[in-house]
Parts: sequence; C-alpha cells; structure tokens
Amino acid sequence: MNGAQALIRTLVDAGVDVCFMNPGTSEMHFVAALDDVPEMRGVLALFEGVATGAADGYSRIADKPASVLLHLGPGLGNGLANLHNARKGHTGVVNIVGDHATYHKQYDAQLESDIETVARNVSSWIRTSNETSSLAADAAEAVAVASGPPAQIATLILPADVSWTEGAEPAEALPARTPEPVADAVLARITEVLQGDEPAALFVGGRACRADALVQASRIANTTGAKLLAETFPARIERGAGRVPVERLAYLAEFASMQLDGLKHMIVVDSKSPVSFFAYPGKASDLVPEGCTVHTLVGQAGDPLEALTALAEAVGATEANETIQPEVRPDLPSGPLTADAVCQAIGALLPEDAIVSDEGNTSGLFAAGHTAGAPAHDWMCLTGGAIGQGLPVALGAAVAAPDRKVVVLQADGAAMFTLQAWWSMAREELDVVTVIFNNASYAVLNMELNRVGAAEGGAKAKEMLDLHRPELDFVALATGMGLSATRATTAEEFNEQFAAAVAKKGPSVIEAIVPSIM
Amino acid sequence: MNGAQALIRTLVDAGVDVCFMNPGTSEMHFVAALDDVPEMRGVLALFEGVATGAADGYSRIADKPASVLLHLGPGLGNGLANLHNARKGHTGVVNIVGDHATYHKQYDAQLESDIETVARNVSSWIRTSNETSSLAADAAEAVAVASGPPAQIATLILPADVSWTEGAEPAEALPARTPEPVADAVLARITEVLQGDEPAALFVGGRACRADALVQASRIANTTGAKLLAETFPARIERGAGRVPVERLAYLAEFASMQLDGLKHMIVVDSKSPVSFFAYPGKASDLVPEGCTVHTLVGQAGDPLEALTALAEAVGATEANETIQPEVRPDLPSGPLTADAVCQAIGALLPEDAIVSDEGNTSGLFAAGHTAGAPAHDWMCLTGGAIGQGLPVALGAAVAAPDRKVVVLQADGAAMFTLQAWWSMAREELDVVTVIFNNASYAVLNMELNRVGAAEGGAKAKEMLDLHRPELDFVALATGMGLSATRATTAEEFNEQFAAAVAKKGPSVIEAIVPSIM
Repeated sequence: MNGAQALIRTLVDAGVDVCFMNPGTSEMHFVAALDDVPEMRGVLALFEGVATGAADGYSRIADKPASVLLHLGPGLGNGLANLHNARKGHTGVVNIVGDHATYHKQYDAQLESDIETVARNVSSWIRTSNETSSLAADAAEAVAVASGPPAQIATLILPADVSWTEGAEPAEALPARTPEPVADAVLARITEVLQGDEPAALFVGGRACRADALVQASRIANTTGAKLLAETFPARIERGAGRVPVERLAYLAEFASMQLDGLKHMIVVDSKSPVSFFAYPGKASDLVPEGCTVHTLVGQAGDPLEALTALAEAVGATEANETIQPEVRPDLPSGPLTADAVCQAIGALLPEDAIVSDEGNTSGLFAAGHTAGAPAHDWMCLTGGAIGQGLPVALGAAVAAPDRKVVVLQADGAAMFTLQAWWSMAREELDVVTVIFNNASYAVLNMELNRVGAAEGGAKAKEMLDLHRPELDFVALATGMGLSATRATTAEEFNEQFAAAVAKKGPSVIEAIVPSIM
Repeated sequence: MNGAQALIRTLVDAGVDVCFMNPGTSEMHFVAALDDVPEMRGVLALFEGVATGAADGYSRIADKPASVLLHLGPGLGNGLANLHNARKGHTGVVNIVGDHATYHKQYDAQLESDIETVARNVSSWIRTSNETSSLAADAAEAVAVASGPPAQIATLILPADVSWTEGAEPAEALPARTPEPVADAVLARITEVLQGDEPAALFVGGRACRADALVQASRIANTTGAKLLAETFPARIERGAGRVPVERLAYLAEFASMQLDGLKHMIVVDSKSPVSFFAYPGKASDLVPEGCTVHTLVGQAGDPLEALTALAEAVGATEANETIQPEVRPDLPSGPLTADAVCQAIGALLPEDAIVSDEGNTSGLFAAGHTAGAPAHDWMCLTGGAIGQGLPVALGAAVAAPDRKVVVLQADGAAMFTLQAWWSMAREELDVVTVIFNNASYAVLNMELNRVGAAEGGAKAKEMLDLHRPELDFVALATGMGLSATRATTAEEFNEQFAAAVAKKGPSVIEAIVPSIM
C-alpha cells in the first residue's frame, strides 16, 4: 500500500468520504488511489474555489468535514477565498495540498512555492507530511482537528514522493473531541443578568442557529424578556414553519445599531460580539452599544445546545415559553419582475426541507421575510464576506443531502467568481436550482461608494461597478456548462419556471432579469 | 488631496497608468479617485486572477509595470496563481491590496485576514502604508521595485482610512535602477570556456529572449560552436521571419535530457539552469548533465543585451555569424480538424507583429514549429506552470499594444480557471482572437498519470481527468460574456474562421473541436 492509498483509507475510516478536487501532476497518485478505496467519492471541480466552497457547504449540511485536494501553492491560492469563508463560518475542512516530491523542492521548479505560508492565514492546523510512514497518522489528526469542536480547517501538505512510496498503513480514527463545558460561574452570572431588570439580548450564531438550540434560546428569551437575535450571516440557520423565528442582525451598521440600541447585556452564544462589516469615515466599528456588557455563554469549542439547555433550566424556562413560526406563505407575485417579486415567489413555492444557499446580496434582501413562514428549511449565508461562495456551497450541500432540494439565490457579480460550480452540478446531476439575480451591477458597491463618503462617484468610478457593456447572459453561460437554463423577465414567467424547477429533480438555472434595488 | 488621489497621481507620474482591478468596499476611495486623475486607465475584471494575469501580460509587452487593485486577503488569494506566474516570469507588477481601516482591524470583522502573510510567497517587497503622509512615497518605491532590474512584484497594502484621509501629496518617481554589470572575471572565464574545445550551450531566458539579445547570442553560438537554447517557457520570446530562430528546451524531461546530452558547459543568460517541471519516481530532477558546469553570465538584476554584446565582442563574433529565420509558412491544412491542423493554419495566417499568448498545453505542442517562419511576432508562455494564464495575459498584452493582433492558444481545461477575461476583452473592445482547443480532457494529466507511474489509472481516476459529461460549449460561454464566437470542426472551417478573425479588429473566439493528442 502506498502513501496515497493509506491516506484515503484513513480518511474514509474516520468518516471523511468525499473529496472535492482539482488535481495536478503532483497529486496523480492520490487520484489513482481513488480506485483502490471505493468508498471515497471524488468530485471534480474546474476551479479550486469551487472545491473549497463545496467542502464548506458539505460540512455545513453533513455536520462532518469533507476533504479537498488542491495542486500546490497556486491551487491553494485559488481556493483561499472560500477557505476564508469556511474559517469565518467555523466549518471544518480537511484541506489536502499536493506538493513537489521532498527532494525536488530544492530545485525551485516552476511551480515551487511556500505552501505553508500560503495556508497559514486560513488554517488552524498545518502539517507537511514528510514521511510515508507517518502520513496516515497525520491524516487522522487532520480529521480530528477539522471535526472539532471547534471545527476548523486542517491543511495537510502532501509531497508527491510521500504519496507514491510503498509501505504505508492506514491509521485509526482519533476519538471525537469533548466539548468544553460551561463554567458554573458563567452560567450563574448570565442567569443573574437575564433575571435582572436591565435590557438584555441573546445573540446566537454558529451551531446555536440549529432548530433544537433555537428552541432553548426562544424559551430563555420569552421567560426573561431578553431579545433574541442571530448573527448577520450564520453558516446554517434552521428556520421556517414549525421552528423558532429569529431576527438576524442587519448588514448595514446603521440598522444594526437600531436593533441593539439600549441593550445593557449581550449574551453571546457560539458567535462573537457584533462589529461593522467595514469601517466608514466617522462611524463606529464596534456595534456593541456603549455601556453594554458582553457575556460569552459558549464559544466554538463548546456545545451550544447543551449550554442553552442548561441556561433554560436555570432561568426556569419551559416548553410553554417557545415562539413557533406558523406556516404562512406569500401569494405568487405578478407583473414586472423585481428582486422583491423573485423572493416572494420563492417564499410561495419553496419546498419542504429545502436548503437555501444565499448569496443574493442586495437582491436577496427581501428573501428572509418572504420565506419566514415557508416549510422548514436550512438557510446558508456568506459567512466570511468573500464573494463567490453561493454556488460552491450549494454544490457541496447537494452532495451531502442528495434527497433535498437546494436553491441558490445568487447575485450576478458574485456568481462570476466561481461560476464553474455549475459544471460540477451538471456532472454530478445534483438537485440544485440556481436563481441568478441579473441586475447588471455590483449594486452593493454602488451603495458602498456612497456610504464611505466617496463623493457621488464620477463616470470612471461608476464604470468599475457596472456590469453592463457587455451584459452577461447567464442562460448562455449555464448552457455552456451543460445545464438547462431559462430566463424570466416577468413575475409570471419566474413563477412558472421556479415551480417547474422545484417539481423536477436535477440541476437547472433561472436567470431573473431585475432592476437594481440601489 | 486624499491618500488615494495622491497614490494614483504618483503611479501615473512614475509611468504606471493602467490598473486592472476588482475592487470592494475598502477600495471605494481609490475607485472614486480615478476620476480625479484622468491619465489612469481602470480596467475592470470580474475575477482577481484575470486582473493579476493581465498586469503580467501588460508588463511583458509594455516593458513597464501595470498596477492591480484587489480587495483584502481573499481578493489577493484569488489573484495569487497569476502573481505566481508573474514572479516566475520575472515581470514587474505593482500589486495594491486594499485593507480595512487601520483602527478597524482589531475587531476581526468578517473579511479580516493577514494580508502580508498571503502576499509573502509571491512578493519581493511588501509594505503596509499606515500613514496617509507616507503613502505616495511608498507607492513611488513600489514602482521602482516593480520596474527593476530585477523586475519584481511589489505589494502595497492600503488601509481604507489611509486612502480616504486628506492632506496627502504626490511623490516624485524614483530614478531607474542601474543594472548590475558583468564582472570582468566572469566574462573572461566564459569567453575561455566558449573558445575551448568542450561542448557548451548558451541557455537564454527572460530578457535575453528579445530579438536584439538573440542576435548577439546567435553570433556567439555560431562563432564558438556553442549550442543556442532557450528556456522552456520564456515570458516573451521575439521570433519569426527576420529574427534568430531558437530551439526551446522541451517540457518533458526525457526530451530535454536529449537536448542537453554531452554538454560540459552551460552559459546561463537571464535564466536559471534547467530542472524538471515535476519529480518522477526514479528520474533525475536536475536536468544539467553530470559533469556539466553551469556559468551564469547575467541574472535578473543585470542587462542581458549588454552582457551578450560584450561576450560577442570578447569571442570575436560579428554580424556575419548570425542565423536569421527566413519567411516560410505552411500551407493551409485541410480535412479533419486536429490540434496539428489548427497550429498549421495559425502558422499560415498569423499576421505581422502579432502577439501570441500560448496556453495550448498538449494541443499547442505543434504551434512553435508551424509558426517558426511566420512574420515577426512575440510569443508568451506559461512561466510559472499555474494554469489559467493564457487569457488574462492576452488581455493585458492587448491593453499594452492596441495596434497589434493578439492570438491566444488556449487549452480547454486551463481556460476554465480565468474565463472571465473574455468579458473584459469585450468591454475594452480589445483586438484578441482566442483559439480554444476543445479536446474535453485534462490531456496533460492523462499523460502525467502514466509518467508518474500511477498504474494505468482506474475508472474513478480517469473520471477526474476527463472533461466530457457534460461537454463544455465554449461558443455558448463566450456568447454569455458578450463575445462573438464560432465553432470549427474541420480544417477548412477553422481556416476560414481564423482568417476572418485576423481580418477584422476586435475580440472573437474560435472553438476548435479536436481529438486529444494523448
């Protein structure tokens, strides 16, 4: 058994049985070994950012890490933006990066680079496996780190000769890590704060946005009078009819400040206290109001469900205190197509147990409202702000949950960063419908140009934010990657096309031509 | 004048008057300042790898650096692969990366990352400008570093508040750097070697591949009996009728070893001694034959033309010793379309003074031969081996030389990494014809799978190297980005379509359906 075969066997034995990849020459033995370990599913991506984003999406839905296989430093570079998003969303990824053979590195060949340095910024754990005999043990450790808690990105650098050398043995999976418990004193102090008279909010993120944790949070909030708020861009929030409705903190600091106004205590659960996305001249970066104390109930290394359950008990909350969202859907829209109408139609038609990957940006602003009472579903957000996440995350989610419909709300400008995800969806015949909001603009930047106080923007500046000239034709682009695609220019057309996409299984694209809301 | 305005004014005054960009919120003041400094041309790219590759291509043709504007660490990550190629090709780039405001970084906002770490691997010079008052001087230094010699990548990190703060002044351009002279002892020793009886080769790369330097190299080689060889993937080689024909070292180590067999001396000129692209089990990495001594005449910090001229004089070479390529073109091909036929047609029809961006990979193998006697032209190669360079480099070259026809030889798999370059070509109405070799395969990897000894490759392995299922339709993809595109399936169709593309000005795409040569 060579190194690559032992590596893949170890991954599979530890539960990591999907690898999103874009390999090159130095990874050919890993690729060849796929046939020796049939349990490992290889999914080819035509661009590395698709592979890393897909691993993130897979991990969010499967609640265990996927692996990624990238080609040297440049391949890792291409995958970096979506690893950034995964890191910020606290999802685990086993990030395998091939390298030149150990003895070849000294020659500074064309593709030589310092992979550890490139990996550092996104990885909690980096290991260059320099010996075939220890490769499998390194892989087992990588899976343990990636699985968490806290879930993290573990980067395993795999020199070609370590991969091809014979004499390797698989390693056993390491035991699951035990979550850090909540200290009694912390629980007591937070109980005291919530039972006191000062305005408080529960601020939930990460795994505290799952349905069972939110039930506990709702009980606590209703019992104590605390406000319940979720972070702006949770990795995965379970919502819809029959679940706890949660208001998310607004992206725009101006609105977020209004939501937080007057608070004296924020109880942070598997998140961090909120800050402004960007800095703006003359505006505060820290969104926590002056005089408000932040209390951390549990962080990424803990167990938010357990912590919230203990807190609910401590404050005397019971089932009777839950707020549950009733099923209520908007009517189908009619007339001219707008971003609002698209979101309304999705609210009217979203199927039970769907997974929504939301990179609608400005156009998606109305989506949360219109879908609040749709049948129970998962909602995945742009965790790290690096655009080009929507399609890859959907790809990975669809691999993780082949029996669920995945819906992507995708802004046009952001789509262009990782559009190659469509090809993998077509190849894998995944059940994903992409809704492209084509407003021919980096609309969010037109807004930001004003928000940062950069005057009104001259003609040259505006040109850098405009996606007309030429207009992107997403039906042609999708067709070019093997998908069936349609274009909607009225609400009626969109309703019909989205209903048809929901009714059938398999990948499709709807290009919604909408005016910019900015 | 704010920081951004002073920065752009400084760049323009130092001769850097093009910026390929994909900006975000933290760069909005830079974008707004484009209207204040009309001499600066902003070229929008829909993906950062397009912007960095375009800067590389621009610099290769303009012989001065372009600037790039990227959004934070993730944007830099997306641009990293083509910065790697630029670094390996020794082309200069002023790489400007926006960052959060200095005071905002402490909050670890969603897009926070350690930009210096991400930049390190590709940058010879990194500076975070933390004061508006010193930003312009930092920019002047960045231009000097990027300009060289040696030409390098200078990364200037630009916090948003440094950009928006008032009170800045432009800085004067720094004087051009003086090339390092060749030491007399080095020149004497190399002269002695070349005049001796032992087999020797002149191994030229970088700026030694320009026409005037090659004339000197040819004189030296012919006078002394030395072999004249160029590096495998020069950034820009000036060739064709009326110029010195030069054999390039083969990509495959097996063939390269045959070219170098028996040499006792290699005289390296603006390159490094050759090594194998990748390591292969049981094969040598260093391609320099045993017992062969490497002598460096001049490196990237020197002046190869001056060094070769001095060496020519030292060995008594004169104009009479030049080898000059006569004009000779192949006939137009006929019959079924193959990669060979495509290259033959290009050899028959390539216009005078064209620029060829060659990322044809396996399909482009025949291109050098068929075009050897075509009218004088430039040929640009994949310098660093990170695929996805062909289209962006062509984009940049076309911006640098608006009166020259740019031809891209583009492999299908590699095209998909940075296909967004087509949109920028359409927007800027650049005179670029892209020839896509669609063989529906990562053909080079099918070859490499065998070369690394990874058995014959099972069904799962082969699937990872195959681009059928679904087949990519590049006509649809090009149309989707606003280009006119045609498909050729016979040699006659290709001849006609390529002739038409050459005859008109403006961007177009020809998808050549060819069998894989592997």
